[in-house]
Amino acid sequence: MLDPLFKPRAVAIVGASTKELSIGNVIIKNLQAFGYQGNIYPIHPSAPEVRGLKAYKTLAEVPGDVDLAHIIIPSKQVPQVIEECGLKGIRAAIINSAGFSEMGAEGAQLQEDFLINARKYDVRIFGPNCQGIINTDPALKAYCNFTFTFPEPGAISVVALSGGVGAVIMQALADLGVGMRMYASNGNASDISIPEILRYWGKDDGCRAIILYTEGFSDPKEFLEVATEIAALKPVLAMKAGRTEQGAKAASSHTGSLAGVDIATELIFEKTGILSFEDEEDMVRAAMAFATQPIPAGNRVGIITNTGGPAVIATDVFGASGMDVPKLSEKSISKLKETQLPEAALENPIDVVATAGGPQFRAAMDVMLDEESVDSIFINFVTAPFTDTHAVAREIVAVGALGRKPIVCNFMTDLTQERFQETRRILKDGGIPCYANPTAAAKALAALARYGRLERRDIGQPETFPGIDPGKAASILEQATAAGRTILSAGEVYGIFEAYGIPVAPWRVVADADRAMVAAKEIGYPVVVKVDAADLDHKSDLGGVAINLRDEEAVRAAVGDMQTRLGGSRKLNFLVQKFLPGGRELIIGASASRGLGHLVMFGLGGIYVEVLKDVAFKIVPVTRVEAEEMIASIKTAALLDGLRGGKGVDKQAVVDLIQRVSQLLTDLPLIQEMDLNPVMAFEDGAFAVDGRIRIKK
Amino acid sequence: MLDPLFKPRAVAIVGASTKELSIGNVIIKNLQAFGYQGNIYPIHPSAPEVRGLKAYKTLAEVPGDVDLAHIIIPSKQVPQVIEECGLKGIRAAIINSAGFSEMGAEGAQLQEDFLINARKYDVRIFGPNCQGIINTDPALKAYCNFTFTFPEPGAISVVALSGGVGAVIMQALADLGVGMRMYASNGNASDISIPEILRYWGKDDGCRAIILYTEGFSDPKEFLEVATEIAALKPVLAMKAGRTEQGAKAASSHTGSLAGVDIATELIFEKTGILSFEDEEDMVRAAMAFATQPIPAGNRVGIITNTGGPAVIATDVFGASGMDVPKLSEKSISKLKETQLPEAALENPIDVVATAGGPQFRAAMDVMLDEESVDSIFINFVTAPFTDTHAVAREIVAVGALGRKPIVCNFMTDLTQERFQETRRILKDGGIPCYANPTAAAKALAALARYGRLERRDIGQPETFPGIDPGKAASILEQATAAGRTILSAGEVYGIFEAYGIPVAPWRVVADADRAMVAAKEIGYPVVVKVDAADLDHKSDLGGVAINLRDEEAVRAAVGDMQTRLGGSRKLNFLVQKFLPGGRELIIGASASRGLGHLVMFGLGGIYVEVLKDVAFKIVPVTRVEAEEMIASIKTAALLDGLRGGKGVDKQAVVDLIQRVSQLLTDLPLIQEMDLNPVMAFEDGAFAVDGRIRIKK
Repeated sequence: MLDPLFKPRAVAIVGASTKELSIGNVIIKNLQAFGYQGNIYPIHPSAPEVRGLKAYKTLAEVPGDVDLAHIIIPSKQVPQVIEECGLKGIRAAIINSAGFSEMGAEGAQLQEDFLINARKYDVRIFGPNCQGIINTDPALKAYCNFTFTFPEPGAISVVALSGGVGAVIMQALADLGVGMRMYASNGNASDISIPEILRYWGKDDGCRAIILYTEGFSDPKEFLEVATEIAALKPVLAMKAGRTEQGAKAASSHTGSLAGVDIATELIFEKTGILSFEDEEDMVRAAMAFATQPIPAGNRVGIITNTGGPAVIATDVFGASGMDVPKLSEKSISKLKETQLPEAALENPIDVVATAGGPQFRAAMDVMLDEESVDSIFINFVTAPFTDTHAVAREIVAVGALGRKPIVCNFMTDLTQERFQETRRILKDGGIPCYANPTAAAKALAALARYGRLERRDIGQPETFPGIDPGKAASILEQATAAGRTILSAGEVYGIFEAYGIPVAPWRVVADADRAMVAAKEIGYPVVVKVDAADLDHKSDLGGVAINLRDEEAVRAAVGDMQTRLGGSRKLNFLVQKFLPGGRELIIGASASRGLGHLVMFGLGGIYVEVLKDVAFKIVPVTRVEAEEMIASIKTAALLDGLRGGKGVDKQAVVDLIQRVSQLLTDLPLIQEMDLNPVMAFEDGAFAVDGRIRIKK
Repeated sequence: MLDPLFKPRAVAIVGASTKELSIGNVIIKNLQAFGYQGNIYPIHPSAPEVRGLKAYKTLAEVPGDVDLAHIIIPSKQVPQVIEECGLKGIRAAIINSAGFSEMGAEGAQLQEDFLINARKYDVRIFGPNCQGIINTDPALKAYCNFTFTFPEPGAISVVALSGGVGAVIMQALADLGVGMRMYASNGNASDISIPEILRYWGKDDGCRAIILYTEGFSDPKEFLEVATEIAALKPVLAMKAGRTEQGAKAASSHTGSLAGVDIATELIFEKTGILSFEDEEDMVRAAMAFATQPIPAGNRVGIITNTGGPAVIATDVFGASGMDVPKLSEKSISKLKETQLPEAALENPIDVVATAGGPQFRAAMDVMLDEESVDSIFINFVTAPFTDTHAVAREIVAVGALGRKPIVCNFMTDLTQERFQETRRILKDGGIPCYANPTAAAKALAALARYGRLERRDIGQPETFPGIDPGKAASILEQATAAGRTILSAGEVYGIFEAYGIPVAPWRVVADADRAMVAAKEIGYPVVVKVDAADLDHKSDLGGVAINLRDEEAVRAAVGDMQTRLGGSRKLNFLVQKFLPGGRELIIGASASRGLGHLVMFGLGGIYVEVLKDVAFKIVPVTRVEAEEMIASIKTAALLDGLRGGKGVDKQAVVDLIQRVSQLLTDLPLIQEMDLNPVMAFEDGAFAVDGRIRIKK
């Protein structure tokens, strides 16, 4: 349990300082200024007191029990101090000091050293090279942190790998007037990890939603497990930086832990139902809506506006976010006719016009509440100086208090004017999320609706197919490993595919032209002949593939030619396979992902993969719903449907194929890379017609 | 000239009111509160004074000269009052009242009526159904507007069709502490148009950049001309709402002037070098950077940060915006080694670390100033409480004052604390654009760089091709018009193409099978035969196209079959054309755009257009540079290059073809729609192999 860290009854500051502008002073100042309810014990080698508090020379001298120690001393002394913490019975330490794993081998050794002591004495470590934690609980008020934003109590908890981004997020919440529950920024994360913190907050009833900033995870599997657990309990809003090549490079130099663009984290977000963002400001603004509003039951928005243009902008945002601004029913329109000003526009958006007061706004909101085609309400409210803006605000709050449908308000005003400050206060105290421009407000409502879709989505469990022969597949891999090969032969690849019921075009592996002709006859013409040698990787480019061979003569010629050109005196093997023309070329690929099992890729073959990079990824195991999502999510998905009246491909066969691949990968972790390229998909089936498997050395 | 509107020496308020919450009172209050330097004359039927000012019963009674009248009276009385304005010698009127063209036929008639009087007496009209103008010039201080934001003087002027969006923009500028020069929101725009205002501001030396919000233009050609003129003088930052189907519908119900998604406005932005935005907040934030910073010479950013994560986020934004965060030179790195703290990361981003003070920041900025591979400087500055934040701010300001490279600052702080307010004041007074989070700041710098690209781009002049026969093309159109046809026959289409030197596959139009065989022989086999009848529009679906005919027998059979099936007793014509297999299928289309001439479309044919909607548009006339941009801008552009070592298509031939189409459309405004579909492109040429032209009735 992380109680000693997040709910410390007493805190010792090892490295307390009498100098105003030093971290060892600022932390004590912050605890005092925030109103910490526990005891603060400065540890200082000589000063009798620090910031008015009695100081102690060592931890051992501290008279009372201590839950948490802040450690702000040179890194070399840290292992020793951790031992002292243990001896004092301290259960958690925030190591603010830098100079550990982020600084090369010597620092990494120091980190190892203090961890040994920490395990020995059961001291949990937060950091090192970190900011700290905050707990705004009015009964505790723990500001164990050297940053500067003093949050109000609230229901949103924030965890950020980077202290800088954590500070930005906390400040943005404060600027919006949104309270915060707990905060954590754990730097090098040598012991207490973000997943562990998430799990702790999952059980915290005071936490209604979580904001997460990360640049990747050292143990993605752990994060996947925790995310699955926590995302089912409460909304998690997350941002993963380093999503571009350049950004990944910057992140890598920052954390030292990653290389290349990491797509796995985003895939974990998607799989587990974490709401992902690309813009930290969008994320924080969305969190404000999550803090008070219910989740909309669907994507349909009713817009009420007292000025035209901002409603157009909001409608654009909704249009681009897959949301609807539906027509209102006749019943609604006739109610509006009775209640609105003559200049009002009685459509969706309802333009109540600038002169509308409380009654007109209320009547329009009542219509939206009762309108069956509307799931959420978006309000554009410009504080026209000639209207009773307080009355309008009170009506919005009254409707919000009903909790029937989520409300988000684009509140356009000048907050330097006292009158409008009061209008704003009415809205804020009433829990109405307010934003200063239409795009920001509409994006926040769109995020609520997007979360609603995630919440309603059930990806189900991975299917287990009957009649599969994992033993056969495993023994093929063993054989290859025993022979020291990492690339499997065509025969081995097809053998593994068949063991998992992956439909392949009928095939034989043969050693010469005579046997190739026999095999072709058994399979039936036309056939393809491919050279089958693990060391000839790009068979097609080398002229090692001959397609659409229609008779014995053609087969003999193809085999003879390949043997001469590619084999020379070395005897080659050949794969003879049924030629299947006319289908849609697909590609299914897989690769092992560091610490996470495998990722599966789906796309259309040929130029669509090569030029358009139009592919979808999922983490193994892939469920039926996820396989369907993969197929639907590529930009060229419409090509799988019939074009110009033709029939489409057998999508269920492709879904089945993706799931069998998923099961195969789950069973065979030795596989590093696998391609089914191409898969040929027809009206009534889909077949792997070429494959490649690379296994671990 | 719009001086009487924007620089009024005296203002009369027709419809002045003694009621606090009425527009006729608020406007006077605003003029007073803003410190208007001219005379204010309330016009009121009975009150002796309004807001402490002597009131007059009629305009005629006003003792002094009046430049501008605010009109806030029922719409029916407006035509009469405009006449009174004219008689009084008033040169401009802001009609705030609603109840005109936005309210149906009766209102439209009233609008016509007051315009007749306005023209008669030479009174320029602003509005009706509008907010008004603001001029912050300290010598004038004209707040002729009923909204509520009181801007500081500055260098940015704002024009917005929608008063609501105008208010949002003005407020956002004020919230950012950015001054404003002039403001205009002209509602129904019955007389003074946004283009006219832009032209006026183009000549205003006090205006450094313009913000424009629009939902489309009633006269796009006028806007195109003015935009060309103004965008060459100063940055114009613009947003066009109604960009989605739903948004366009909302805009249409709001302005009554548009239907469907209008792409022409965006194309005008692009053609003329106006910087386009989709988010009003991004636009205003970018304007803050334009207000003080020079335009970067290129896309390469040097990042200086005192906290890691925000630099990663910024780098992601730069990566996604086509900007570079280049490696620093050895020289730069060795300078950094001498000047930075031991924990600093001496790369790009330079992480000076949280404990860095003024000297470290200054040294890092000096390196970026001298680094040849860097065009602009991005600073992440979190106000660590243990550093001298004022000193850091002063160094940033000092470097900014050099004006050598643009600087944008992500300034992460808590502005409720006095100490940080002062740091912020130093930055703001020093003209450093500051933003509260990394994405916002990086987007603003990216907008500066995007504008730099626009500024450096020269689209050149449209080419005029020699040997063109416009007379022949015109006479073909005349013939069709005379015959009452709007769809041209294949022969006519190819005739027009040939008149403009558009390469077409060799062709003949014939009346029967015998002549078809003769034609095929002359052209050379293989050929295509198509039925040529304007009323059979979807020839291909009807079986009216036979391709790859290799001999006389095949031609005879095809013609006979089509005559029987599609003609019956009616004699059909047939187009015999050279069959050109193996090229890349392209499509070039054109359509007349309301009030703007033609738009040209380019894309890859077949599924790429049908499924991927992967097309590019430009406004005619299209220059060589624009034609090259069209080809490069489609997502599937790589398909035009050689794949897997093959040769690509002859892009210069396609560029030439697009320009010839452009010249054709410039000369023949009668054309409503034209398709060259497909164009077959080869290594050494491109040919229109089917075409369609529809002309105006």
